[in-house]
Amino acid sequence: MSKRVLGIAVVGIGGAVGTTMAAGIALLRRGLIDTTGLPLAGSEAALAGYKEIVFAGWDLFPDDLAAAAEGHEVLTYKQHVAISDELAQIEPWPAIGDPRFLSVIEGSNKIASGGHRAVIEQLRSNLAAFKAKCDGAVVINLASTEKLGDAADPTFASLASFESALDADSPAVSPAMLYAYAAIAERVPYGNFTPSLSADIPALVEFAVKMNVPVAGKDGKTGQTFIKTVLAPALRARALHIDGWYSTNILGNRDGLALSNEDSLASKIHTKRSVLDEMLGYDVEDHIVDIRYYRPRGDDKEAWDNIDIRGFLGRTMQLKVNFLCKDSILAAPLAIEIARCLDLAAQRGDGGVQEQLGVFFKMPMTRSDTPEHAFFVQSATLDRWLAS
Amino acid sequence: MSKRVLGIAVVGIGGAVGTTMAAGIALLRRGLIDTTGLPLAGSEAALAGYKEIVFAGWDLFPDDLAAAAEGHEVLTYKQHVAISDELAQIEPWPAIGDPRFLSVIEGSNKIASGGHRAVIEQLRSNLAAFKAKCDGAVVINLASTEKLGDAADPTFASLASFESALDADSPAVSPAMLYAYAAIAERVPYGNFTPSLSADIPALVEFAVKMNVPVAGKDGKTGQTFIKTVLAPALRARALHIDGWYSTNILGNRDGLALSNEDSLASKIHTKRSVLDEMLGYDVEDHIVDIRYYRPRGDDKEAWDNIDIRGFLGRTMQLKVNFLCKDSILAAPLAIEIARCLDLAAQRGDGGVQEQLGVFFKMPMTRSDTPEHAFFVQSATLDRWLAS
Amino acid sequence: MSKRVLGIAVVGIGGAVGTTMAAGIALLRRGLIDTTGLPLAGSEAALAGYKEIVFAGWDLFPDDLAAAAEGHEVLTYKQHVAISDELAQIEPWPAIGDPRFLSVIEGSNKIASGGHRAVIEQLRSNLAAFKAKCDGAVVINLASTEKLGDAADPTFASLASFESALDADSPAVSPAMLYAYAAIAERVPYGNFTPSLSADIPALVEFAVKMNVPVAGKDGKTGQTFIKTVLAPALRARALHIDGWYSTNILGNRDGLALSNEDSLASKIHTKRSVLDEMLGYDVEDHIVDIRYYRPRGDDKEAWDNIDIRGFLGRTMQLKVNFLCKDSILAAPLAIEIARCLDLAAQRGDGGVQEQLGVFFKMPMTRSDTPEHAFFVQSATLDRWLAS
Amino acid sequence: MSKRVLGIAVVGIGGAVGTTMAAGIALLRRGLIDTTGLPLAGSEAALAGYKEIVFAGWDLFPDDLAAAAEGHEVLTYKQHVAISDELAQIEPWPAIGDPRFLSVIEGSNKIASGGHRAVIEQLRSNLAAFKAKCDGAVVINLASTEKLGDAADPTFASLASFESALDADSPAVSPAMLYAYAAIAERVPYGNFTPSLSADIPALVEFAVKMNVPVAGKDGKTGQTFIKTVLAPALRARALHIDGWYSTNILGNRDGLALSNEDSLASKIHTKRSVLDEMLGYDVEDHIVDIRYYRPRGDDKEAWDNIDIRGFLGRTMQLKVNFLCKDSILAAPLAIEIARCLDLAAQRGDGGVQEQLGVFFKMPMTRSDTPEHAFFVQSATLDRWLAS
Repeated sequence: MSKRVLGIAVVGIGGAVGTTMAAGIALLRRGLIDTTGLPLAGSEAALAGYKEIVFAGWDLFPDDLAAAAEGHEVLTYKQHVAISDELAQIEPWPAIGDPRFLSVIEGSNKIASGGHRAVIEQLRSNLAAFKAKCDGAVVINLASTEKLGDAADPTFASLASFESALDADSPAVSPAMLYAYAAIAERVPYGNFTPSLSADIPALVEFAVKMNVPVAGKDGKTGQTFIKTVLAPALRARALHIDGWYSTNILGNRDGLALSNEDSLASKIHTKRSVLDEMLGYDVEDHIVDIRYYRPRGDDKEAWDNIDIRGFLGRTMQLKVNFLCKDSILAAPLAIEIARCLDLAAQRGDGGVQEQLGVFFKMPMTRSDTPEHAFFVQSATLDRWLAS
Repeated sequence: MSKRVLGIAVVGIGGAVGTTMAAGIALLRRGLIDTTGLPLAGSEAALAGYKEIVFAGWDLFPDDLAAAAEGHEVLTYKQHVAISDELAQIEPWPAIGDPRFLSVIEGSNKIASGGHRAVIEQLRSNLAAFKAKCDGAVVINLASTEKLGDAADPTFASLASFESALDADSPAVSPAMLYAYAAIAERVPYGNFTPSLSADIPALVEFAVKMNVPVAGKDGKTGQTFIKTVLAPALRARALHIDGWYSTNILGNRDGLALSNEDSLASKIHTKRSVLDEMLGYDVEDHIVDIRYYRPRGDDKEAWDNIDIRGFLGRTMQLKVNFLCKDSILAAPLAIEIARCLDLAAQRGDGGVQEQLGVFFKMPMTRSDTPEHAFFVQSATLDRWLAS
Repeated sequence: MSKRVLGIAVVGIGGAVGTTMAAGIALLRRGLIDTTGLPLAGSEAALAGYKEIVFAGWDLFPDDLAAAAEGHEVLTYKQHVAISDELAQIEPWPAIGDPRFLSVIEGSNKIASGGHRAVIEQLRSNLAAFKAKCDGAVVINLASTEKLGDAADPTFASLASFESALDADSPAVSPAMLYAYAAIAERVPYGNFTPSLSADIPALVEFAVKMNVPVAGKDGKTGQTFIKTVLAPALRARALHIDGWYSTNILGNRDGLALSNEDSLASKIHTKRSVLDEMLGYDVEDHIVDIRYYRPRGDDKEAWDNIDIRGFLGRTMQLKVNFLCKDSILAAPLAIEIARCLDLAAQRGDGGVQEQLGVFFKMPMTRSDTPEHAFFVQSATLDRWLAS
Repeated sequence: MSKRVLGIAVVGIGGAVGTTMAAGIALLRRGLIDTTGLPLAGSEAALAGYKEIVFAGWDLFPDDLAAAAEGHEVLTYKQHVAISDELAQIEPWPAIGDPRFLSVIEGSNKIASGGHRAVIEQLRSNLAAFKAKCDGAVVINLASTEKLGDAADPTFASLASFESALDADSPAVSPAMLYAYAAIAERVPYGNFTPSLSADIPALVEFAVKMNVPVAGKDGKTGQTFIKTVLAPALRARALHIDGWYSTNILGNRDGLALSNEDSLASKIHTKRSVLDEMLGYDVEDHIVDIRYYRPRGDDKEAWDNIDIRGFLGRTMQLKVNFLCKDSILAAPLAIEIARCLDLAAQRGDGGVQEQLGVFFKMPMTRSDTPEHAFFVQSATLDRWLAS
């Protein structure tokens, strides 16, 4: 791998996933863990090396990352001792706190309100200083899910209308859009790991193309949807019909709390549902997705899926999958790989939507209208791009 | 699809799978079921049409297929009424009953013992008469699993040594080999849906190549192994390490009873274990496979898999899969597709091992030494062959 | 058992449970099934014999019970053939159809509206005619769950206020209350197998005591709650603390459809939640109950429970229970036993709330304020009453 | 609770359960954990107080308990720091190492071989010295399961024949019997938490009665069997017939390794199977129990049970239970409670078999021939004894 220093600026750096990213890289650098969980560890492509990655980012909570790591309980005692000094040096920049988009999380480390343009200036100034210390930089959005926005709002239809809305401090413009706008304006690639409406609006895609900045998203494909996009194409390949799919999720971390807000939840569930029908080529009539905040799980996440299958002679069968996973452990390495790939795209001069990164997302952004969701098809697409 | 009449001669026609095959085609012909469960229903290739398929076969039990269907309880009442007259016309030919290879099943419809050569003559005469009534014929082995044979036995090393063993009535030669030999001798393609040692010995591969007869096998990939070959490559693609895989199976039909014989069970478990390590590229240290005869299930089969996964930061997670499936419902359409593909290969003049059919088998026969087990890779291979 | 003829008049006789009750007794009478599933089959008490039970009842759908049984698919073909003549003779009386209490179910077999008093007269006249043909009669409510009523409504506080409300055709009075009132007025014991507000209001308890008519309820304890009231006391006896309990239910029959109405669902979930805390003696902080209408299940019902347990040294463990059950198969025999017990109480001259029947209910009616939910305690209480 | 100092001498003190017992009491003494998991914490009876318990014991491994705790990973870092000094003071006495009874475990801390009588003398001398420091002492067997012995061996039929066998150094006499003999000889109550043949032979029961020493056993009822003895009586109470019960267990600690020895496994499975039939009153025809050593679990234990149930109308249903538990966390508090109860029995002057302790055992020793297995019946029996 190259010796290029890659800076990753994370929106929500102090969350469980952001902290795990930074901790993982620090542990790798010391040889205390191996590359298990990092899908592109064996790739031959000119991706930035893991050990050369550095972190910064914004967060509504002012805790440094050593304190954040203690709170999230993602590290063993030995791991914590080994890297707490390094983590303590990462202190979050003030973040945008807008209760209209996220009412459950209340943090104190807020950017002083001064209108959209002033906020963007501050974000850009954070990024510019960070970029100066790296060979390349990428922004990854890991903030808690915002209230579901309306992608069809005319405000978002073109860069011109969006910029007018910025000038007018329009309430339609969300924090996630402001971060994305600032990144693109600074020519820093942007990846959206959350389901929030962000770089996937026409205005920002137009902006990314104009600036030739790579963007990708959205909503990291970690646990249940990962399994779904593996199993559904397999059942289809065997011509087994899916009569019903009942999916339930319980999770107990800060993201879970954010989702206990009904509007944020609607955003997440909407994403999960459409994936299945698009993969199968028909609508599953009884498809139920439920996500619940359940504290005994802490950062662990549990999914229970029941799939009702119809086979030959019209006979029915059932497949049940119970995934006891750890959200941050699955998400952090994917977010790192997305950053490395966006950086590679930037080096190659490829701007705009990076649809070859679809394997990492529940709701892949595409240049055309029809996203591919089948995991192994996506995986092969990424492999070809890396080898190109 | 073509109007070509394809005859399928099944070893074990009266078993649950054989009966389901014949019943399914009869129901399709009457428009009483659709093609759900038949993976190649949408293929553009010149495969024989489902409605033109006819059946015959051998079985140790003399019941006609209407009686067999009643015993296996694979049909609804309405389905049974609609096709029992047609099924009643299929009466099994006498089969080879050799207690050295299968001691648990005791049937009365046996070929009179007269030595290997005499047995082969009788099988060939059954086939020759059947072929005469069809445009093409295929033999599919669906007999109960035999005691585990030794593939490295010098007897099986060449066609010459095998033929000497036939002449000498060697006890090393199993029933499954005799059926395969007879099929190849009659230039009838042969597919082995069971784990028994059969056309996968060097002697019979040599014979198939010499006669330019397509052969394929072995051990139909229906339930648990199907899911395994879907999930394991996905976990590998995410760089998640498998620390352990605990697989347990309960099944209650005649196959389950056969497996309660220890030697047959060893054959089946051996197959299941090797698949996983080959797909992952490393040995799973704690890989346990257990198969049990459990009568409350009847023809249903249940698999419970627990997978212990290690991810980023060395953290462990668990994935559990519970598959409540119906053995015959999953197996029958695959056996039909294998027959159609073997027939297509014969039409195309392709003899010898048909490794493009690996997607249908737990233990795919290959021309080289390294079988591919990953489901989606196999699936793509078959698609290319069909389109060629 | 006695030769006494017991008539059971079911509210919702044409539903899956009502049909299963009638079919089960008809099959028992012919010796085609045994008493599996009937908890009191071995009791020595002077309960009415199963074979002497006869059925009648009200339903919004006019189908006779043979037609209903065909729709519900609760019988095998052989069972259907054996008893369809007998079932066909049971034709539902017109039922109360009030969209304010149950908007999803739309049936045509309605009592002509004429005010509460007129409706009661018609119900009483149905009952009086039925009683005349039996040695004893009981009314069991199996109608779809109504919208959650307010038990604390002053209308329900006394018999006097309730009767005024009847005179005034008050919209607060629900169909379930009218059936209960009619039964008590006819001195026919009444059991409420549903969660609807009915005989458990002070007014009707007062009426039952005054008329010395036995009443019991409510909400039959069949699947998930049955298991909950078995496991929770066991965990408590081992001093294992329950940090969280996540319960999810999927069901696909007409009751499921009724529950897809939000108000009816609230009624059901409320019942399920309180049970656990009362049994444990502390509030489970994360207790989630979810019930969903899911058509692939048909009359089957599936529950998945995840229990987070804390033990010695503060260590956590998990217990997961997956119950694939059949609603009507579990409910029907309990409803029969409730009817037999209410009839026995009536014979013994015991009127008012029959709290010894708590083992059959999710929300047992009691004379005092603190219902016992622990299954084995309830079971012992019933045994003592039967033996008394 | 009383201020009486209770000494518990554990056979296998350095194992995961023994270490957890000692660690738990040390943590309780410091107020660092509460009594969660200790079933008799709320009892009014004159049991020894938890904080006054002290530990000693034998082990084939010489490590002190602080070292043992590190190996077993049963403590959090904070818990370990808090009590390691105290645990370090507990150093195991040399134990009996007899490869004929337990071949997998190979430890160095062995009693020098000198014949049965010499071994007994050494055990008694350990106990005598320990007793002198306490108000009362109890021996609890937590050693790895021995090879299945033959309870009907005439050697064990009477105290006289057993003592002759001791004199003759008979190979039939197992280590577990020698510990039990030594305890009884020292008038120290003895509890057997393992399935090994020990105080449950007629010779040692006779000895316990003669010396008026309380004894109890055997095989602690912790995970799967606990759940089984809760669920089976509940299913019986609902008259649901059990067609089959498939139980599988995976565990990864030293006990799991011992069970990978086939003879030890047979001992354990035999115990588990008989329990179910005795509770139900009929033989479950398809009852399969499987126990596997599976290292990814460590000290955790996982059980998966599938129960096939037949209900009304002959319809079948399934109940599946997946218990992810921690062996030592469940076992240690039970072993502590057994010791406290045996000490109470000794104070009350009750010698011989203590059958009121059956709630703690898979295979309860009884004075008569028919053990009660139903959990809630056992629980009520213990409550009555404690209150007496």
